[in-house]
Amino acid sequence: MAARHIMLGTVVGMGLGGAAAFLYVRRQQQPAARLPDGTEIRHQVFKHGMPVGDRLRVFTDYASSFDTRLRNPRWVLEHIDADKVASREGSRKGSGFVEDKGIERRFRSTLDHFRNSGYDRGHMAPAANHKRSQEAMDQTFILSNTSPQVGAGFNRDYWARFERFVQDLSRRCDDVWVVTGPLYLPQPAPGGAPGTYVMNHPMIGTPPQLMAVPTHFFKVVLGEFSGGRRAAVGAFVMPNAAIHPQVPLASFTVPISALEEVAGLRFFPGYLSDTRREAIDETALAVQRVGHAELQLLNPGHQPLLLPLPANSAQAVPAAAAGAVAAAALGGSLAVQPTDQRRSLGAVHVCEHTECRLSAEQLWENGGRPGSRKGKGELQRTKSAPP
Amino acid sequence: MAARHIMLGTVVGMGLGGAAAFLYVRRQQQPAARLPDGTEIRHQVFKHGMPVGDRLRVFTDYASSFDTRLRNPRWVLEHIDADKVASREGSRKGSGFVEDKGIERRFRSTLDHFRNSGYDRGHMAPAANHKRSQEAMDQTFILSNTSPQVGAGFNRDYWARFERFVQDLSRRCDDVWVVTGPLYLPQPAPGGAPGTYVMNHPMIGTPPQLMAVPTHFFKVVLGEFSGGRRAAVGAFVMPNAAIHPQVPLASFTVPISALEEVAGLRFFPGYLSDTRREAIDETALAVQRVGHAELQLLNPGHQPLLLPLPANSAQAVPAAAAGAVAAAALGGSLAVQPTDQRRSLGAVHVCEHTECRLSAEQLWENGGRPGSRKGKGELQRTKSAPP
Repeated sequence: MAARHIMLGTVVGMGLGGAAAFLYVRRQQQPAARLPDGTEIRHQVFKHGMPVGDRLRVFTDYASSFDTRLRNPRWVLEHIDADKVASREGSRKGSGFVEDKGIERRFRSTLDHFRNSGYDRGHMAPAANHKRSQEAMDQTFILSNTSPQVGAGFNRDYWARFERFVQDLSRRCDDVWVVTGPLYLPQPAPGGAPGTYVMNHPMIGTPPQLMAVPTHFFKVVLGEFSGGRRAAVGAFVMPNAAIHPQVPLASFTVPISALEEVAGLRFFPGYLSDTRREAIDETALAVQRVGHAELQLLNPGHQPLLLPLPANSAQAVPAAAAGAVAAAALGGSLAVQPTDQRRSLGAVHVCEHTECRLSAEQLWENGGRPGSRKGKGELQRTKSAPP
Repeated sequence: MAARHIMLGTVVGMGLGGAAAFLYVRRQQQPAARLPDGTEIRHQVFKHGMPVGDRLRVFTDYASSFDTRLRNPRWVLEHIDADKVASREGSRKGSGFVEDKGIERRFRSTLDHFRNSGYDRGHMAPAANHKRSQEAMDQTFILSNTSPQVGAGFNRDYWARFERFVQDLSRRCDDVWVVTGPLYLPQPAPGGAPGTYVMNHPMIGTPPQLMAVPTHFFKVVLGEFSGGRRAAVGAFVMPNAAIHPQVPLASFTVPISALEEVAGLRFFPGYLSDTRREAIDETALAVQRVGHAELQLLNPGHQPLLLPLPANSAQAVPAAAAGAVAAAALGGSLAVQPTDQRRSLGAVHVCEHTECRLSAEQLWENGGRPGSRKGKGELQRTKSAPP
């Protein structure tokens, strides 16, 4: 009887053990894929691999995600500080645009895309932010760090002054993180019913490997100050078009949430809790209103922007009208007093920490040093591609 | 002397050890992020986190990547076999469309996007492929598995017949993997110079949380047969528009490489080596030419397609002209003999393995069973959203 029980137990045990081993081996045989947090998942659907899309690229001084469909960066994330900006170790003279060999040729942005396109190869992480070493600077010239930008009036002018603003911010903070990228903002459908929208932007190059021309560009900045206990945060969106030099920077301030929703991205997820983002966005809207009010003073005929994001327009301000009222309008009206509650969050809007004003319009002409004409190269005057 | 050497050595050693420990700790303090292959990378830029974009979603019977910018799936990858397709465990009767709670509300596709939009909530992984369990079927009704599709003439007709073709393929293979997704194909710029292109497609919903309406949809199929030693592979692209029922399926065959380049995706990277893809694409072009030739027979006035991808047109075939020549044209001209060299790759084009013909136009009316009218629900007649 005992023997039979032992036999029975053995058979049952063999069965259980065998089944467990079978299930274990079967599970191990399931193809694996990884979640973004590194977790490995085994699933039959992954036997021949998961479709491969955007590419994460990590360099000495910045990281980026490359959009293999539109052949533009999706975002470029950089860290800058006063040292990196002040350093002279790296120079643009030794740098030239190169294709990103870390991305298969048929998915990358190429020199050919830009050639004769009429667009600049506009840096996302600016070369002038990464002068700490020649390697760091050279890496900003990798084409996956560039997007087709309108040159005159934008990349070489207003956008360059905006980049200078971010550099200046690094001198007023301990450390600054910046995310820069292209946007493709929908427009009201031409001739369509109110409330109908279309996506519409040029594509350059040769099918099927076309590159998108963005309608807008964004920057989100996060500057730590007070030894990292507080941070100044803000988001800006500008049209990829010539912008009149007197348009106030404040008018390009946007709520981070709205930017996130059109970009399909969440920024600084380790810092921007919903509470912090909401507090900053409240200020952003106030700053934007001040900016728009200034714009109205500069140009009374100016059309209201498509809130909560700027419309795809160059927001041209007639130079004649602008000059007369500029001095009066640009009179420190941006000051926004943060409440105690918001202060306790540790986060303020960047325009509360640093006055959101661009450097003088002529700054780029002398490299920021009065009387000097040498520094031009430092100011993102990205040259057009040779024909 | 010896004591001094020992002292000196100790000091040098302390310095080296201290420096090593400092660098080690500093490195450990660097914020971490993960590469798609799971490798952890530590880099100062990641202190406040990396921007978060598309979401990977893994369900019982399929996996997908959701495009948080265009609020559409980027791709949906499913595994099917004859059993899953034949099973009756799951039924559509208990299933209804639900939002994907795994994605933040402001980034997901919602019931509101589709309401009164005029578009169907078109399944990417079809419900009828996942009848093995009610759970598996229910999961196909999660909105992140749907895209806005034209209903009459497409989602409820030609596309449904195409889905039936893929189901039939699962009966002729051991296992089938399918990737389905939306496409946004550029068009020649209206009134622009030759060779200039624009992206142009509607966006539905309310800004800034708009959802894109794709111009086209694709499927890439990989069917293993001969016990997994061989595979039939192919890619198809169809416009998001009513398609005349007699347009031959072969005319929607596209080279996988061209599809990959407009989608920004590499498909089945574990299987499709460059050599295999090139061999399959060669056949794909031959099949496409046969399909286009048939189309010309059906409709002599038909405009040539934008090669290597179909243009955004419904490719309408006048019914009167079509009927007369259909019988003659659809005469088995698709047979393509694979060469020995291509056979040795183990990969053939799907139209070499299975005749690329859609089921009869009226099939959906009786659920595939002659004389029966019960099975309608099985055939992807996705209902329009209630007003």
